[in-house]
Amino acid sequence: MKKHITILGSTGSIGRQTLEVIRDEPESFEVIALSAWKNIELLRTQITQFKPRYVVVKDEKLAKELKNKLTSKEDCQILYGDYGLTKIATIKENQLVVVAITGMTALKPAIEAIKAKKEIGLANKEIVVSAGEILIKEAKENSVEIIPIDSEHSGLFQCIQAKFYDNIEKIIITASGGPFYHLKETALDSVSVEEALNHPNWQMGNKVSIDSATLMNKGLEVIEAHWLFNIPVNKIEILVHPQSYIHALVQYDDGSMIAQLSNHDMRIPIHFALHYPKRIHNNLSRINLAKIGQLTFKKLDSKRFPSVDLCYEAIRQGGTFPVTLNAANEVAVNAFLSQGLKFKDIIKIVSTVMGRHQNKLNPSIYDIIYQDRETRKLTASICNEIKN
Amino acid sequence: MKKHITILGSTGSIGRQTLEVIRDEPESFEVIALSAWKNIELLRTQITQFKPRYVVVKDEKLAKELKNKLTSKEDCQILYGDYGLTKIATIKENQLVVVAITGMTALKPAIEAIKAKKEIGLANKEIVVSAGEILIKEAKENSVEIIPIDSEHSGLFQCIQAKFYDNIEKIIITASGGPFYHLKETALDSVSVEEALNHPNWQMGNKVSIDSATLMNKGLEVIEAHWLFNIPVNKIEILVHPQSYIHALVQYDDGSMIAQLSNHDMRIPIHFALHYPKRIHNNLSRINLAKIGQLTFKKLDSKRFPSVDLCYEAIRQGGTFPVTLNAANEVAVNAFLSQGLKFKDIIKIVSTVMGRHQNKLNPSIYDIIYQDRETRKLTASICNEIKN
Repeated sequence: MKKHITILGSTGSIGRQTLEVIRDEPESFEVIALSAWKNIELLRTQITQFKPRYVVVKDEKLAKELKNKLTSKEDCQILYGDYGLTKIATIKENQLVVVAITGMTALKPAIEAIKAKKEIGLANKEIVVSAGEILIKEAKENSVEIIPIDSEHSGLFQCIQAKFYDNIEKIIITASGGPFYHLKETALDSVSVEEALNHPNWQMGNKVSIDSATLMNKGLEVIEAHWLFNIPVNKIEILVHPQSYIHALVQYDDGSMIAQLSNHDMRIPIHFALHYPKRIHNNLSRINLAKIGQLTFKKLDSKRFPSVDLCYEAIRQGGTFPVTLNAANEVAVNAFLSQGLKFKDIIKIVSTVMGRHQNKLNPSIYDIIYQDRETRKLTASICNEIKN
Repeated sequence: MKKHITILGSTGSIGRQTLEVIRDEPESFEVIALSAWKNIELLRTQITQFKPRYVVVKDEKLAKELKNKLTSKEDCQILYGDYGLTKIATIKENQLVVVAITGMTALKPAIEAIKAKKEIGLANKEIVVSAGEILIKEAKENSVEIIPIDSEHSGLFQCIQAKFYDNIEKIIITASGGPFYHLKETALDSVSVEEALNHPNWQMGNKVSIDSATLMNKGLEVIEAHWLFNIPVNKIEILVHPQSYIHALVQYDDGSMIAQLSNHDMRIPIHFALHYPKRIHNNLSRINLAKIGQLTFKKLDSKRFPSVDLCYEAIRQGGTFPVTLNAANEVAVNAFLSQGLKFKDIIKIVSTVMGRHQNKLNPSIYDIIYQDRETRKLTASICNEIKN
């Protein structure tokens, strides 16, 4: 029987690669719904190819525009906005929801999908950072498995052997170090957007590419790992590994370490998540260590890249600190990408916003959404001040 | 409740380290029996410390000698020879037999231990190479778990996740390359015994040190892995990894690889085997990849080290080929160690002996023991010819 799948964010990098995996295994999967937000051109191509029953775009205007483009053969129900996302995340005939939208937009549909007992393939770390406790609690209560798609967390998921869970001494996620890890601190002052987007190992979306350059991405992944695997943050380490072949390692308390390795191809963790709890053969490229020749490792220099310490601090404080960190970062990254903010200002601004934050412990989902919105306003105004 | 343990070969390198692990966890283990063959001085110390109920030495003479040395407080039953080994491998109150004798002497006691439904901690590869099919069949029939102690096989044991067993595409065991991997072929003509015993990463017994230098050890490990994990040899690869931190890797058929890593300390796989199916915390040293800095990998040069191809050939042929290979190698290694044979002659002789072998398929245990004995005679005479 085919697994029925909804993809939230089908026109982004992870969404497109998820559809590639599905395209190559038509006997295994059926696409029930796609969401595309603004890129209706690509969505139309996806509709033709995958024949989803539902699609979601940003608003009514785009929905009409899309409707006019579709022929009678391309019959599907067009929904829009948050309502549409929640609808396709919860439709009855669906089994797995791939959450490939970046940012907080994914929060409500993800929670509703969990409540509707849909399995989750998770490629969005912002919602786990901001509302991890709530998400995990819902997943537990509804017996829903969240299968990570991030390569590091997929690696951890594969390394952590259930029967030895209590023997985990620490978990390690690797960091390529991004495009600037070799630079001196002073050189970081003048890097361009183009340079920051040029990741050495992965082709990714803009937001996550900048997060990789600041290493904020790795800090967010620590928080994500904390929630997904229920491991205290003081047992989560980052190891710089420029070649990015080892994605994650688990140190067991009897001296052995288990690691997961694969090539730089997000379709590998996507394929794993789509087929879980099975592994199914694919033809994606295999690692050839003899050819690679060497793997190198360095201690993380958190002085040069202070984002990581901010993440550890946010999750130690808990409450609304992580959502504040995440929202401030998202706004600052956008200001860097499109409004001429300097690279090093991104993390300075996040730090400033966190410094002003009054924490609220045990926040409800509404507290988190409120705090997210307020932080965005505050951060935007700080970005404006700095530019002027 | 304490696990009751017998160690066959308690005065050798693995035996001593097994007792170190036991010494540090007196609440977990009780030593029921030890065997020492010739080193009765060390055995006496072990008797004082671990108070086994039985000990075994080589022959009646040594048994009497030992008896005279023991005080009335050091009360234990002294047995000798093959009978003694089989006796302590099968005593009722025992649960786990650590097979740490090298060579074929271990075969009969290991099989009898399995028939008596004792769990096996296996540090002897020669018996698996020579009689793998029979050993594994007995283990299956008696529902006995064989837990490997070799670091590579312990690594594989930890990487192979039962639920994904059918997805194993290949398994890889690493090879340090031994002390001579950097040498040109011509330089191998003149290496000394001392140089051959000087392994870069591990302190081991003489036999296995020489096998590491010829890389025969790695070939034997391929055969061992074939039997222990029921994987066809064409799915087993060797990867040269001079630092020996990654011991084994499993390539799954969906692009992911799982690896096991640990420091160079045989107590880590021993500790794992003693406690299996649990992992228990210990204070053995942990790997620090940031400090290690780099791991390197090379394709195996089987032209310079032809032993590996001989092993693949022996297991492909099956029948009495593997026991012939193993026996020839053991005699040739001894001739190198003590009779002035040249290093490169070891593998030449093994190759010659294999070339003359008439295979017998589906051998019984008696066929194997007979072939072992005959091969030793033949190989000894060839060694003598070469020296003269």
